[in-house]
Amino acid sequence: MADGMIARLWGYNGQSTGPTIEAVEGERVRIYVTNRLPEHTSVHWHGLILPSGMDGVGGLSHPGIPPGKTFVYEFDLIKSGTFMYHPHADEMVQMAMGMMGLFIVHPRDPAFMPVDRDFAFLLAAYDIDPGTYIPRVAEMTNFNMWTWNSRIFPDIDPLVVNKGDRVRVRCGNLTMTNHPIHMHGYDFQVTCTDGGWVPESARWPEVSIDIPVGAMRAYEFDAIHEGDWAIHCHKSHHTMNAMGHDIPTFIGADKSRLTQMIRRQQPGYMPMGTAGMADMGEMSMEIPENTVPMMTGWGPHGPLEMGGMFSVVKVREGIDRDDYSDPGWYDNPPGTQAYEWTGELPEHAYNTSPKTVITPRGGVRQG
Amino acid sequence: MADGMIARLWGYNGQSTGPTIEAVEGERVRIYVTNRLPEHTSVHWHGLILPSGMDGVGGLSHPGIPPGKTFVYEFDLIKSGTFMYHPHADEMVQMAMGMMGLFIVHPRDPAFMPVDRDFAFLLAAYDIDPGTYIPRVAEMTNFNMWTWNSRIFPDIDPLVVNKGDRVRVRCGNLTMTNHPIHMHGYDFQVTCTDGGWVPESARWPEVSIDIPVGAMRAYEFDAIHEGDWAIHCHKSHHTMNAMGHDIPTFIGADKSRLTQMIRRQQPGYMPMGTAGMADMGEMSMEIPENTVPMMTGWGPHGPLEMGGMFSVVKVREGIDRDDYSDPGWYDNPPGTQAYEWTGELPEHAYNTSPKTVITPRGGVRQG
Amino acid sequence: MADGMIARLWGYNGQSTGPTIEAVEGERVRIYVTNRLPEHTSVHWHGLILPSGMDGVGGLSHPGIPPGKTFVYEFDLIKSGTFMYHPHADEMVQMAMGMMGLFIVHPRDPAFMPVDRDFAFLLAAYDIDPGTYIPRVAEMTNFNMWTWNSRIFPDIDPLVVNKGDRVRVRCGNLTMTNHPIHMHGYDFQVTCTDGGWVPESARWPEVSIDIPVGAMRAYEFDAIHEGDWAIHCHKSHHTMNAMGHDIPTFIGADKSRLTQMIRRQQPGYMPMGTAGMADMGEMSMEIPENTVPMMTGWGPHGPLEMGGMFSVVKVREGIDRDDYSDPGWYDNPPGTQAYEWTGELPEHAYNTSPKTVITPRGGVRQG
Repeated sequence: MADGMIARLWGYNGQSTGPTIEAVEGERVRIYVTNRLPEHTSVHWHGLILPSGMDGVGGLSHPGIPPGKTFVYEFDLIKSGTFMYHPHADEMVQMAMGMMGLFIVHPRDPAFMPVDRDFAFLLAAYDIDPGTYIPRVAEMTNFNMWTWNSRIFPDIDPLVVNKGDRVRVRCGNLTMTNHPIHMHGYDFQVTCTDGGWVPESARWPEVSIDIPVGAMRAYEFDAIHEGDWAIHCHKSHHTMNAMGHDIPTFIGADKSRLTQMIRRQQPGYMPMGTAGMADMGEMSMEIPENTVPMMTGWGPHGPLEMGGMFSVVKVREGIDRDDYSDPGWYDNPPGTQAYEWTGELPEHAYNTSPKTVITPRGGVRQG
Repeated sequence: MADGMIARLWGYNGQSTGPTIEAVEGERVRIYVTNRLPEHTSVHWHGLILPSGMDGVGGLSHPGIPPGKTFVYEFDLIKSGTFMYHPHADEMVQMAMGMMGLFIVHPRDPAFMPVDRDFAFLLAAYDIDPGTYIPRVAEMTNFNMWTWNSRIFPDIDPLVVNKGDRVRVRCGNLTMTNHPIHMHGYDFQVTCTDGGWVPESARWPEVSIDIPVGAMRAYEFDAIHEGDWAIHCHKSHHTMNAMGHDIPTFIGADKSRLTQMIRRQQPGYMPMGTAGMADMGEMSMEIPENTVPMMTGWGPHGPLEMGGMFSVVKVREGIDRDDYSDPGWYDNPPGTQAYEWTGELPEHAYNTSPKTVITPRGGVRQG
Repeated sequence: MADGMIARLWGYNGQSTGPTIEAVEGERVRIYVTNRLPEHTSVHWHGLILPSGMDGVGGLSHPGIPPGKTFVYEFDLIKSGTFMYHPHADEMVQMAMGMMGLFIVHPRDPAFMPVDRDFAFLLAAYDIDPGTYIPRVAEMTNFNMWTWNSRIFPDIDPLVVNKGDRVRVRCGNLTMTNHPIHMHGYDFQVTCTDGGWVPESARWPEVSIDIPVGAMRAYEFDAIHEGDWAIHCHKSHHTMNAMGHDIPTFIGADKSRLTQMIRRQQPGYMPMGTAGMADMGEMSMEIPENTVPMMTGWGPHGPLEMGGMFSVVKVREGIDRDDYSDPGWYDNPPGTQAYEWTGELPEHAYNTSPKTVITPRGGVRQG
């Protein structure tokens, strides 16, 4: 999942998520599925139009595939789009263990909705106790690993884009809750669901695409704004790694006497959490074996304090269209970066456009 | 709720969900509400346009209806569509106890958006401990009974449809979370919400309709694909019946020594869960009085391992339009069902369209 | 948050939510941010199109703003709409502590989408144990304070509107779950998201606007229906104040013997919950210091039994357009309010339009 964090999952062809199957509209596919799990399975082809007996619902479409056996699915691809595959046998357990993949059918006409860059990932959530390797498969809401293609930040690749590229991002959700995927720097439109292409008249402008469970959304944009743009789920806990959700809050608490007492036994002890949790992003603490810090990652200007479902869209002028490897961090042109101000503040007046002063502070009352 | 599982709910006219009220656009309705609950109630007509004093918000629109009293609501139906009714007095408790119903207003013009088959259900969630009969009304997230019209699979009727029928499915959500209703075999479009009819220019193609809380979605399709097509909420826990969510995972654990020890005391003991949970769908275990197995139901080809919000859309050629009773399971035409393969596998190569091999197995690493 | 309930939050300029920043499309804004928190912070301008270095992601766009320092953000407002601002540094903690605000950019052309009344609020959720003052910042799902602009009913102002006004309601969501905002008496359409204005061809009719996390929805309607119309989140727990979610249900339980025993020690004791919870809306109980009752608020016709995300849209003829102060409760014209019926009931027959009888009662079975 990330450096220092291994999960023992179930998957396809040695991967979770499984390989992305790509084919072209009008083709006929034959898929051999050999079951090397200890229990039966099946493969449901989510969103594809196919015969009832090829639909992969164990017990309904066909018998479950017993351990050790190979089954064949075969059908015509009658429409283009982005689809998914996953088991429909002991479904809750097998999906909680990581069994899922994408199935992309490219349009037969290459001039239909062409793009220069095409990204695709699946959202999967796991509940893996720190120090263990296998997800708790009966968990319904309280997950602690929020992943893209079963990987977490900072081990998710950046999305590298040439300035001017037409870009598509395809994202399917097989977790237990909606994920609003928010991308900075742009507004954009959903052009495709797992049901098909969205007509232009029906598209909404968005900066966060709320992806329902068991659904896929592909959105597109023209990469006209250079920079390093965060892309992440906007539920703040989903950009965290493993953490407890029921720890008390110590913000504002005076721990100085307690610290003094503990330091008599453990000289290096540092109290945490009394001023927020940003300090956790900056220091390296001892953590249990096989887990990752709650907040992690460094950017060009300091700690990012992120995890889970987070990455960066890197839009650059003059990227080699045969390479697209990570160009490093963005170099802000002069005058385009927030900067420290040491002069006089203008007279305290907010909402006096174009000048506004806002002052974050604690201990406030609601207005 | 199902065979062997009785819940003691509150409802309307002896039912939960209450009777579906049907009327025609332009009519004036008068509704007598006699309160036989032990506390006051009211009826809010969700989505209908009516006078403020008929809106049914207890204390705001009118006084709550005291136990034993009858109140009258009377208003004109100025628009067609699918609406809901439920209490707006001690609302959290009374809805958690099952008080809700559908209110369908048919268009005055029968040529407006006609369909051949018209299905309607309400999503309701309950938290009923195994062996008890009354929902825990203060629960916010951790429900264990996910129902359609207060029924769970396998006691939800199939949706029987003639090939070529125009079909509408109306679904309202009065739970505490979004439910993505996923139907196999088709793509389709939402044509109506509880706010009114969706114009054609605004419709999206979908295979999963994400139904927000306090909202209704009706979708339509032409039943051109014969078969048995699963229809279900795509949150995998919502197609389970009563279960605990905090049980540990034993996948991969070696229980053989433990089994040996237990069998000295209890000769028939079988360890479960070390190879997934599919075995639970196949065997009958002793369960507490008044509950249902977590996974259940049998199809034509074995156990379905489902529960909760699950049913089957059965599309058949030549169904009697005066009958529409359950036609039994679908008989797959030759060559349209996944089948066991005992020959040589093609050279191991995925993504070599049109031939693909995928091999589910455990113990994998993320790719 | 409400009378009797104080939270110690973090905010901007002494407020949570922070001041709504208003400016006009085409203007250039300069914003001075002085950090008076005990840890570093940053301000992300959610939805605005601006240079990468002004985007406010701590560590990525620029260094975090250290405690005591002032930073300047400066950029052109190239599009109109409704945007948000919040920290992107120790984001989970700082948003859980109340740091967020709205940023409204009015169209340069005053004839573009004009409205007479324009309401705006942010959804924020807190988890504050009764008797304490600081939110539990690591909570992911189990919040107990569901607020609009960090306030809860009954301390949320009504939305006062003149009959015939064109009305816009802008609502952004920075909690951890979707909130379906349901308004009674009308249907309406989303006209704007934080991504931009929604074209007419793409709009849906709705009575509940499901607002995803990290998204904004503005909806509009013509205020043609006079009355007092409830507006609230449709998740029933989100119109409750502080409460426990794991208390048992006593509905139908016989507590008379228990009551007798307790009264020997405490003569005034009253058993609660055996007939639902409506009695809690009517009586004043002793509650811990610094909290609010679960259900509260009085309307013109009795207790409202609400809390949290609830208010009332008051549409009146002849409101002074320079005043818009609370006009009091609506006076229903004769014949437009639900009323008690003491005569004979019509023959028991539901679904015999236009007359329908429905009878709420307990102990029912599912139909």
